[in-house]
Amino acid sequence: MGFPEKVTIIEVGPRDGLQNEKNFVPTDKKINFIKKLKEAGLSEIEITSFVSPKWVPQMKDASTVANTFQSDTCRNIVLVPNQKGLEKALQANCRSVALFIGVSDTFNQKNINKHTKEAVQTLLPLIQQLKQQECFIRTCISTAFYCPYEGKIHERDVLALCESFVEAGVNELSVADTIGMANPKDVFSLFSKLKQNFPHTLLAAHFHDTRGLAIANIYAALQAGINRFDSSAGGVGGCPFAKGATGNVATEDLVFMLHEMGISTSINEEKLLEAVDFIAPHISRPIESKQYSLFAQR
Amino acid sequence: MGFPEKVTIIEVGPRDGLQNEKNFVPTDKKINFIKKLKEAGLSEIEITSFVSPKWVPQMKDASTVANTFQSDTCRNIVLVPNQKGLEKALQANCRSVALFIGVSDTFNQKNINKHTKEAVQTLLPLIQQLKQQECFIRTCISTAFYCPYEGKIHERDVLALCESFVEAGVNELSVADTIGMANPKDVFSLFSKLKQNFPHTLLAAHFHDTRGLAIANIYAALQAGINRFDSSAGGVGGCPFAKGATGNVATEDLVFMLHEMGISTSINEEKLLEAVDFIAPHISRPIESKQYSLFAQR
Repeated sequence: MGFPEKVTIIEVGPRDGLQNEKNFVPTDKKINFIKKLKEAGLSEIEITSFVSPKWVPQMKDASTVANTFQSDTCRNIVLVPNQKGLEKALQANCRSVALFIGVSDTFNQKNINKHTKEAVQTLLPLIQQLKQQECFIRTCISTAFYCPYEGKIHERDVLALCESFVEAGVNELSVADTIGMANPKDVFSLFSKLKQNFPHTLLAAHFHDTRGLAIANIYAALQAGINRFDSSAGGVGGCPFAKGATGNVATEDLVFMLHEMGISTSINEEKLLEAVDFIAPHISRPIESKQYSLFAQR
Repeated sequence: MGFPEKVTIIEVGPRDGLQNEKNFVPTDKKINFIKKLKEAGLSEIEITSFVSPKWVPQMKDASTVANTFQSDTCRNIVLVPNQKGLEKALQANCRSVALFIGVSDTFNQKNINKHTKEAVQTLLPLIQQLKQQECFIRTCISTAFYCPYEGKIHERDVLALCESFVEAGVNELSVADTIGMANPKDVFSLFSKLKQNFPHTLLAAHFHDTRGLAIANIYAALQAGINRFDSSAGGVGGCPFAKGATGNVATEDLVFMLHEMGISTSINEEKLLEAVDFIAPHISRPIESKQYSLFAQR
């Protein structure tokens, strides 16, 4: 079995992770957290989200955070949910933007009050605008395996939705098991097809460890030829639908496996654990990653 | 990729799990725990250990526990460390016996004050005696990937040690990543060779989740054709060398993955979680398995 020699990790902690934190994390702590992640070698990071501060007060400092990282060479990704968010992101000179959509109709309806097809139509003009600005466009494809409302999702629906975005010219698809229900067999199957169907698009896999299968799913995706993975330092964040359960796979656990397998990542494990240690006191639940548990016991 | 249609789980919680518990678990609780595991469908269980009660007071009730399960149709396995333990096990009419040895010289020296070769020589007469009694003989091969003292272990040493026991006529080899340091690439490699070299011996894989790779390692072993796995209900137990870290992979997390992949196990997930819930109050650290965390939140 062949594995990639090198894997790129897209760190989602500062955005996807902190977004689910109830207590406001002070802006300077967020900025220092991101700086420490960069020092650890992470070069593609979801740094913030231009969502409505009414709905997500945690992200009310999006412009300040985004402005701080205007001029470095990292890919500093900001999420925008709609036209209004896009305008704010462009005002803050952001050059890499993530858009978000679910495969499931019901999920999108509950989330943004639109069917999946309507949601695609809403995003297409944003993509055109981003392409004109020569921005990097990442599309986060949510509920690609299971939906909390509809149950199992068909591969053909995921592939069709991804095709809409590939045709629209996005640079990357991040395909997610939003509620942590995927198993490695299905992961291998879907990502093999994604890889085959979209050979010219960057493909990232995004797993949640809700039921303990994230690392096995990553292993299966590696076997399918995937070399880009989303993860969150400390495993911070996760899906609000799986109450109290672990969310995003922890960057440090993923990096540990990759390095043990002889796959390089450009990430310094020790500095990464220091970044986790820095943000840990601001997170309302204990950090559950294995690597950090061992670090904290030293 | 092919996977086995059916997997057998060897439940090690009552022995390998409880053995590391500092507080004595009352005998009737142990017995009821084992009964509940059987009700959940587990048919091969390490039920106790005939070790010296001076060294492991937790197992001082080995004869009582073993006697309780003389007449059912399950494979009730008892561990014996030496001739004295074997005699006690045979007195209690045990029919399935596990022997224990490390690959690493230093590990065996620290554990039983013998080099690996001396340790093999000590076990051979026990195997002969067990074969005369037509007992089922399981050999637990410890430190098959890493040793806490010697570091990385060579495959050739594992294969050579296993060969000694296969030649001696044991029925099963349970090959273990004792300190939870193995990665799925190495797991696939070693288990592929074990499967090839010993086609007529039952082969079980035993993983610890200390660094979060147990489930990925199991997935890799499945791909190597392994269809027998050791695990511990609730993930109870583990290696004393990785202080405070999670130990054995949890049976309920393993069963979840297998069932999601369409692999049958004969185990009822709900009844298994009830067995975990029964023993949880007697375990001195919280149960960390994902499936039990979700169960406890219901």
